[in-house]
Amino acid sequence: MSVSRPKPAGLHRVVVAGAGFGGLFATKRLRGAPVEVTLIDRTTHHLFQPLLYQVATGILSEGDVAPATRDVLRHQHNARVMVGEVVDVDLDARTVTSLALDRETVVPYDTLIVATGSAQSYFGHDEFALHAPGLKTIDDALEVRGRIFGAFELAEIEPDPERQAAWLTFALIGAGPTGVEMAGQIAELSQGALRGCFREIDPADARILLLDGAPRILPTFDERLSTRAAEQLRRLGVEIEVGAMVVGVEEDGIEVQGADGERWRIPAMTKVWSAGVQATELSKLLAEQSGAQLTRRGQVEVEPDCTLPGHPEVFVVGDLMGLDGLPGLAEVAIQTGLHAASQVRRRLDGDATPRRFRYVDMGSLAAISRYYAVGERGAVRLWGFPAWIVWLIVHLAFLTGFKNRVAALFNWVTSFFGRSRYERTITRRQVLARGALGASDSLVTDSRPGEEGAGP
Amino acid sequence: MSVSRPKPAGLHRVVVAGAGFGGLFATKRLRGAPVEVTLIDRTTHHLFQPLLYQVATGILSEGDVAPATRDVLRHQHNARVMVGEVVDVDLDARTVTSLALDRETVVPYDTLIVATGSAQSYFGHDEFALHAPGLKTIDDALEVRGRIFGAFELAEIEPDPERQAAWLTFALIGAGPTGVEMAGQIAELSQGALRGCFREIDPADARILLLDGAPRILPTFDERLSTRAAEQLRRLGVEIEVGAMVVGVEEDGIEVQGADGERWRIPAMTKVWSAGVQATELSKLLAEQSGAQLTRRGQVEVEPDCTLPGHPEVFVVGDLMGLDGLPGLAEVAIQTGLHAASQVRRRLDGDATPRRFRYVDMGSLAAISRYYAVGERGAVRLWGFPAWIVWLIVHLAFLTGFKNRVAALFNWVTSFFGRSRYERTITRRQVLARGALGASDSLVTDSRPGEEGAGP
Repeated sequence: MSVSRPKPAGLHRVVVAGAGFGGLFATKRLRGAPVEVTLIDRTTHHLFQPLLYQVATGILSEGDVAPATRDVLRHQHNARVMVGEVVDVDLDARTVTSLALDRETVVPYDTLIVATGSAQSYFGHDEFALHAPGLKTIDDALEVRGRIFGAFELAEIEPDPERQAAWLTFALIGAGPTGVEMAGQIAELSQGALRGCFREIDPADARILLLDGAPRILPTFDERLSTRAAEQLRRLGVEIEVGAMVVGVEEDGIEVQGADGERWRIPAMTKVWSAGVQATELSKLLAEQSGAQLTRRGQVEVEPDCTLPGHPEVFVVGDLMGLDGLPGLAEVAIQTGLHAASQVRRRLDGDATPRRFRYVDMGSLAAISRYYAVGERGAVRLWGFPAWIVWLIVHLAFLTGFKNRVAALFNWVTSFFGRSRYERTITRRQVLARGALGASDSLVTDSRPGEEGAGP
Repeated sequence: MSVSRPKPAGLHRVVVAGAGFGGLFATKRLRGAPVEVTLIDRTTHHLFQPLLYQVATGILSEGDVAPATRDVLRHQHNARVMVGEVVDVDLDARTVTSLALDRETVVPYDTLIVATGSAQSYFGHDEFALHAPGLKTIDDALEVRGRIFGAFELAEIEPDPERQAAWLTFALIGAGPTGVEMAGQIAELSQGALRGCFREIDPADARILLLDGAPRILPTFDERLSTRAAEQLRRLGVEIEVGAMVVGVEEDGIEVQGADGERWRIPAMTKVWSAGVQATELSKLLAEQSGAQLTRRGQVEVEPDCTLPGHPEVFVVGDLMGLDGLPGLAEVAIQTGLHAASQVRRRLDGDATPRRFRYVDMGSLAAISRYYAVGERGAVRLWGFPAWIVWLIVHLAFLTGFKNRVAALFNWVTSFFGRSRYERTITRRQVLARGALGASDSLVTDSRPGEEGAGP
């Protein structure tokens, strides 16, 4: 174990755990402040999670949505970036422990901002992860990309009609924005980008299933938008099964239970899980040491100013934070991250009064297919092409970095107008080790709680 | 085992093994011919191998250099693409056996074009692959990308100065074009793109070693160009050790033997191997069954028309082919692939006369750094900026697909003028499992002979 080397005395030390939206925006808001920020994350990139499904479906490259964190913060001289997993917090000693390459580093803080986010939740069935990866990290996106494009390749060489049909069946488990966007993208792949590429199969025969235990898709949206989104997905050929819980996941299929308790099996080689999220492990440590409560999803219940009860020097933001039932959205992570950093700046200016966090609802958007999205903000509802244009502008505006914006726009032009997918390269290992342990052991590791990044 | 489903009778069946330059250009030349082409490859992409080092160093995305093979051949209706590894050839029965997902498929042919290329050779020390991956496949490039960018990240958190120096030492083993281009790129990374990104280390302190047992770098180039290339690399800070054989590779260093037999050890966490190539396994099968000879590098010695001795229906092209000592260049693979396909077309037109393959030497190019390349064609030698402009134009012209060209140009503009690297995303698994078995077991598998793609 080593202790992070001491810095010139006197500067207020802020440690930020997690480089997702919450952690990155908190760090950036501290630019120029008389503090020394250490941002710790298990990956070396900030992830623009709302576009991760486009990496998985061959539209964007991983570089487009995951810029190197230290490149983003290059000119912020009071910030340093450390790769490592925050495995321990000591609220009394005011230190966090970061683990990288089997070595622990103890980093002392004066203020701690915890933004480690949420991981996929399998509701106690972590074994599902092997065959139904989630979509929370770059590792996930590349794995899912390999599975989707690999499935069409393997269907092409499959002589047995039943297994061929299973290769051509894609089950999206969970009908929140991630599941809906994936369903739309796979439908467009099968009917557009892959058309004419195969000789033995017709990719348009692909069966795309969107399943959810809830009674409707996009349950957090206005019911009329759910209905419109479902109509558009059905037009694309997506089969929607709501009120249908997935109770079993195997290599070659899923078991579904209907609202009436009846169970049935669906052969499907490719499954993607976005049915639930769970706060990362750090929440338990924080709760144990501070006496804070955990929400049902494992989030830490915080004071109205986003601090840990009894610990005004510790902020919990983003998906890890339980406050007023706020949803796991990028927007909530950004606003709470900024709120925490502003509070730190005010304290350094001598104003220690806690300020209540007030969420400004910027609305929600979900892209169903090219030229079709749904969105709402307050009483305003949008759908179809106008919503899609808003979706395009908002996502371009929020992408980090000018080059990433230009690259994304360029890729969107070629994908949406040209109807092709250029970022569909998969590794040899992904094609030929499909289903074998080699391809999937990483997933088992990655699906354990402890992921960074904002919710779906 | 299954036998590929029978096709409408009468059409001449051409099977092409390998979707590298040789296999792809042979297939494309058969467009419109009264044949039925089956192209088999272990990956789902054609690889533009000459730019692979740019994927490894964060300039290009994998999609930029590895378009889906079936997308390239989408409009060629007489061609089908099959994923699988060609594990057997039966010259008497005229069948090849393709293995995918533990199932073998037997594919009959009337004409066979074998273009499975070469793999990295470790000269009997395959155990070196674990710590010194090659650069022949997309899997390799992503692995090397993870190791390079990961090494800087780990140097930043390394408290021990000696180990920190080892993290900042990069050994390029083999000073052909791949080694030279990698050395130049890592030098530019350390002095340009990564500048200002770190707080504990100065990336410009990185030590970049280019080693080769031969007496000079770029040994296939004119000696004066070798000298100029070496001068430019030294200006960039690269240390060149020629006449130095790498005789040992461990996790944290290499052992080097000089021309005088003296041995010494260099601590270096990151090693890339491009010291030798070896023909893929298929060459042995072909030699055993036909009585053909193998060259020292394991290539099949063919007739002057690129056919297997005694088997005019079997062509061997590209890196796998031994003919007149032709080098393992993309250009040789392209020209022999085209030659084989033209021969097939002539035979179908009733002209069975074997035509000798004549290589048209288009010259060689190697990029040393931005704005600096060396090149030669016949008696013409070019270096510096003019050679770099030629390099740029030639590589843009040969990249497959309009979109890939625009994307590559765009990435070059941002990387060369903007001095940044946008495609440097690495997976979480790559960062934290560095050196552990999990991260590297794929390499052991991938480094066994049997790779597709043209030589360096």
